[in-house]
Amino acid sequence: MTGTPMQLPEPSQAVLRAARKLVRRKARREAGKFLVEGRQAVREALRSPGVVEAVFVRWADAIEHADLVDAARRGGVVVYGVSEQNLATLSDTVTPQGLVAVARTIDVPLESVVRDGARLVVVCAQVRDPGNAGTVIRCADAFGADAVVLSADSVEVYNPKTVRASVGSVFHLPVVTGVELADAIAACHAAGLQVLATDGEADTLLPELGERLARPTAWVMGNESWGLPVEHLQLADQTVAVPIYGKAESLNLATAAAVCLYASASAQRSS
Amino acid sequence: MTGTPMQLPEPSQAVLRAARKLVRRKARREAGKFLVEGRQAVREALRSPGVVEAVFVRWADAIEHADLVDAARRGGVVVYGVSEQNLATLSDTVTPQGLVAVARTIDVPLESVVRDGARLVVVCAQVRDPGNAGTVIRCADAFGADAVVLSADSVEVYNPKTVRASVGSVFHLPVVTGVELADAIAACHAAGLQVLATDGEADTLLPELGERLARPTAWVMGNESWGLPVEHLQLADQTVAVPIYGKAESLNLATAAAVCLYASASAQRSS
Repeated sequence: MTGTPMQLPEPSQAVLRAARKLVRRKARREAGKFLVEGRQAVREALRSPGVVEAVFVRWADAIEHADLVDAARRGGVVVYGVSEQNLATLSDTVTPQGLVAVARTIDVPLESVVRDGARLVVVCAQVRDPGNAGTVIRCADAFGADAVVLSADSVEVYNPKTVRASVGSVFHLPVVTGVELADAIAACHAAGLQVLATDGEADTLLPELGERLARPTAWVMGNESWGLPVEHLQLADQTVAVPIYGKAESLNLATAAAVCLYASASAQRSS
Repeated sequence: MTGTPMQLPEPSQAVLRAARKLVRRKARREAGKFLVEGRQAVREALRSPGVVEAVFVRWADAIEHADLVDAARRGGVVVYGVSEQNLATLSDTVTPQGLVAVARTIDVPLESVVRDGARLVVVCAQVRDPGNAGTVIRCADAFGADAVVLSADSVEVYNPKTVRASVGSVFHLPVVTGVELADAIAACHAAGLQVLATDGEADTLLPELGERLARPTAWVMGNESWGLPVEHLQLADQTVAVPIYGKAESLNLATAAAVCLYASASAQRSS
């Protein structure tokens, strides 16, 4: 036994204040840390050695989270017990799950992940909705992508909503941020990936790609509202539309990404 | 010209009060009406004759929505101008788009839509998150499904979050609600549809279905948290897993539905 939840120390005011600051983007960037909320995300963070710095658990939920408290302590991570009120200040949800971790941000250079041997990469151009970004990262993880690239002017990957929507997937695959879209596409080309860009107006429909789907591929997904501008579409080897057979005007970004990634991943594995 | 936005009448207190009540489920059920928010959803509602009863537009946005104001009036729908404060009471979003309609709910009997000739139907078992339900309806619409069935104990289709997430698709295809899952599956069988149920533990992966995907199909999707219980999985002809190639534990409901519907719709059209 490595201790019971009842023996959790209380954090000092300084520790609590430093953690609380991380609800703001500027503070996250300065500290190189972010908040991770909820059982599933905290568990996945704890599985990545050296990522979690501290865990805060609400007293009332300490027994429920005893397994994660033990896992944290075994990994040398300090676990604090906090009151309902103090936990709420670390969370941006109305009904927090009683568990928040402070994790270190990880800077991943583009060239280290988009390189020879990569088979499936997702490049999001100016994704603005944190929930969408997180869901795309979750889908990329599910379909075995090598990396996700969020272009400059995208939502921050360490936004609490992005982290939450990724359900732990931000800890599963490298997420490259802050690069210009043209640079990301150039890196994909240099790594031998075909670059497919989604565009609702494209002449080629996803199912028509057939065996081309099995090639190593980077999918470029546009912004939720305005898609991809012409100058970026032109950088792709092919523009592709997810077919709309009914009366809906469009699919949302995360749904379109899921369908494209599934199509590539299943074609790559069946070929 | 059918009038300018500047000539919009103000609603009486009684009209406003009756509309405002519709933010609550009980009032929606009693009145047989619901609220539709935002440009895209209101436009789609107006395209369905007889559905919209009234439109409320914020004075400040009347010019921006002039096309929809005209469309409503041409359809004999009364359009009211309201203040910022009054519009806010009709909306559950923090930043409403300045446009809310009151629409009549539509009761669709199961037998009238799940019948011979149907090729693609989605049955959601106890879907609880309104955003998920709306996104599934949007995907079903996009991939040309004939109908969506939300089983008893599902979220209400007229919940403002569901309507909003569907981006107008609730007006594009029939949504059957409140039926027992077993009855929905029986109706699908009676209509000659194969019934495929999603289950993360299933031995058969989606891509392995091959040409079977081209048959008329009902997809049964389980609850976000607990999936489908064994007694319901047994009612299906086949249980199917969307493959997870990476480290993610699961896909979210709407994503899984999108992938399954895309796979069926594209197979049906290529065969």
